[in-house]
Amino acid sequence: MSGKNVFYAQSGGVTAVINATACGVIETARKQRSIGKVLAGRNGIIGALNEELIDTSLESRADIAKLRHTPSGAFGSCRYKLKSIDENRAEYERLIDVFRAHQIGYFFYNGGGDSTDTANKVSSFSRTLGYPITCIGIPKTVDNDLAITDTCPGFGSVAKYVAISTLEAGLDVASMATSSTKVFVLEVMGRHAGWIAAAGGLAGSSARQPPHIILFPEIAFDRQRFLDKVKATVNSIGFCVIVASEGTQYGDGRFVADAGLKDAFGHTQLGGVAPSLVDMIKQAHGYKCHWSVADYLQRAARHIASATDVAQAYAVGEAAVEFAIAGKDAVMPVIIRGKGKKYTWEIGEAPLGKVANVEKKLPRSFISKDGYSITASARRYLSPLIAGESHPPYRNGLPVYVRLKNKLVRKKLPAFRTEG
Amino acid sequence: MSGKNVFYAQSGGVTAVINATACGVIETARKQRSIGKVLAGRNGIIGALNEELIDTSLESRADIAKLRHTPSGAFGSCRYKLKSIDENRAEYERLIDVFRAHQIGYFFYNGGGDSTDTANKVSSFSRTLGYPITCIGIPKTVDNDLAITDTCPGFGSVAKYVAISTLEAGLDVASMATSSTKVFVLEVMGRHAGWIAAAGGLAGSSARQPPHIILFPEIAFDRQRFLDKVKATVNSIGFCVIVASEGTQYGDGRFVADAGLKDAFGHTQLGGVAPSLVDMIKQAHGYKCHWSVADYLQRAARHIASATDVAQAYAVGEAAVEFAIAGKDAVMPVIIRGKGKKYTWEIGEAPLGKVANVEKKLPRSFISKDGYSITASARRYLSPLIAGESHPPYRNGLPVYVRLKNKLVRKKLPAFRTEG
Repeated sequence: MSGKNVFYAQSGGVTAVINATACGVIETARKQRSIGKVLAGRNGIIGALNEELIDTSLESRADIAKLRHTPSGAFGSCRYKLKSIDENRAEYERLIDVFRAHQIGYFFYNGGGDSTDTANKVSSFSRTLGYPITCIGIPKTVDNDLAITDTCPGFGSVAKYVAISTLEAGLDVASMATSSTKVFVLEVMGRHAGWIAAAGGLAGSSARQPPHIILFPEIAFDRQRFLDKVKATVNSIGFCVIVASEGTQYGDGRFVADAGLKDAFGHTQLGGVAPSLVDMIKQAHGYKCHWSVADYLQRAARHIASATDVAQAYAVGEAAVEFAIAGKDAVMPVIIRGKGKKYTWEIGEAPLGKVANVEKKLPRSFISKDGYSITASARRYLSPLIAGESHPPYRNGLPVYVRLKNKLVRKKLPAFRTEG
Repeated sequence: MSGKNVFYAQSGGVTAVINATACGVIETARKQRSIGKVLAGRNGIIGALNEELIDTSLESRADIAKLRHTPSGAFGSCRYKLKSIDENRAEYERLIDVFRAHQIGYFFYNGGGDSTDTANKVSSFSRTLGYPITCIGIPKTVDNDLAITDTCPGFGSVAKYVAISTLEAGLDVASMATSSTKVFVLEVMGRHAGWIAAAGGLAGSSARQPPHIILFPEIAFDRQRFLDKVKATVNSIGFCVIVASEGTQYGDGRFVADAGLKDAFGHTQLGGVAPSLVDMIKQAHGYKCHWSVADYLQRAARHIASATDVAQAYAVGEAAVEFAIAGKDAVMPVIIRGKGKKYTWEIGEAPLGKVANVEKKLPRSFISKDGYSITASARRYLSPLIAGESHPPYRNGLPVYVRLKNKLVRKKLPAFRTEG
């Protein structure tokens, strides 16, 4: 019989390349005699608690290879944060019970800051219970806010999508502005950090090219200053393209998106930042405006993924297996950027405890003095992350994305009630 | 000296492939000794009225070739409809004056229904004035609503964008639905006709696959029936993906987007249909929802253009020149679909008078009985239009789109005041 099985779970918001990481995990594990099967959590960690384990060994080699170019979470993900061990010890015990029942010796948790924290706790708790589990965190988040790693798999592809969308919409507005639309607002993700909004800045290489204004959560929104800047831009360039982070907020922490829109019944409507900004601009200046909210499209857009991002996403999955075999525990493979002028990267490692619960904001040095654009250092950082195309295969005009069989392993334990 | 010059103008909302048509016009005209220069209107027909004529002969062969993969209107477009000759005869006289001053013998008007009508009027009026102009309409509109032609260049690429976006976002929601987002709404263009919304239907091949609901302007929106359908879908499938045309309207003609949202000051806010629907769903069912408004992104997305669309866009430009040389007047090159099972197409011709002022709606036979999805005939019609990829070249992770020099010809006439 081969070695212990791997439990792999996807966590939190999915990305265009998280399945490339799954592909890296599964393909690498299949080559290792010392590792048994890779069992994936159905809908992430909830799958472990519910003993819903997908047997990936039943998937063909060809289908697993297709994960590399399939967006979203092939096994399902979840937004479910385990409480602290003191608050809900039963959940941790349940995890270990399930791991023990299915000969799982390795827990690979593919997610952001919260998941890193959970993996770290499971590692130490499993030793307390006398059933030690090797826990490896694998980085993933479009928000790019994890510590230590130079970038997070998932971010490069969103960045590429936002840069290209800004470029394309900017050309559109430029050609219509004389007689029609003067202002275009693109709303992008990033509730707490402006990494994604910053990527929009790659669309232009001079101050006259779109985007003319970027709104970051890190910079307090000043309504009048913003409106003046819009007007000055339209006056000098003829139009104004704005990339706005969903997390754009006033100095007192109120989100611009929650500007107090009400429907006919007086219920507060959850606006987006884009329509709120457009409303302001129309009222102040009367310009014809258009706006777009990218939402899930930006993080699901595998069709325009960054080849660099795909390669890194695969590599962290591969490294997780290699780390496990090398006997490492409570660590995360991270991306280390080379020091040279030409962009290079390699995989390094970081202790989970140093990654967990740290949120990496966009440095102030990446934002221009006036707070509305990115600096040369931001460009140097961002540009290589969107480099390279990784076109998926197409059939009948559509990308060929795999849908796995996702067969569950037979349950061995009584049911468990999660608190979520 | 070579023959008369061509005046080429882009009109109305731009597309991902209108420059491919410009490329077809210019490359073909350059090969013809009987044709002089191609002069392009700066910002469309306004350029003719203002005597702002771009000399395309100053652009390099390489740059003109790049138009084939550059979205938006390279010379600028406009929303400016000439009034009837009775109402504003001066404008028509001005056009002819400018054409005469610049030895223009051919007027190629690249636009939708209104432009076709204008080109038709200019043709007859120019004969009245004794300076006959050969007028060729060239079809363009993402709305796909022109008569006679099987499809309109620009539509196939929007259709592909919407189908792929729906597919990708659908996979995203599917992987999150258990613990998070249950409903996703994608708002697409199409104020009067549901062609673009219908294209979202190509993302799925069975009723269980997204999109689960498509909202067409052609089908009266019934709030309760819609909410029931959303609930039934979430209950049976676990989540619900909706593609909604911006033109979705109630039986009495009110747009769902104008549902009466007001800001804190009591001003009506121009919502989109997506946030309005999400608001309804949240209030009725309490589901977590996400929504996206594609807006300009969909029609500017040259990075994911349909190769079929690009080829057709180029071909109608090429045909315009060939028609002109063959002495045709007041006609439009159109796409004729072959009768066979395998999709084929060729260029045909239609008199401008038969295309002008006719709006082609989505046939009822393309919409399912319940009004929420597309039929097999819609699929047969739509599917070949999104076929094939036409990836632009990339540099540093971004598509290489050309920005032309756009040098104006020296003016010869006194200024003219447009009424627009």
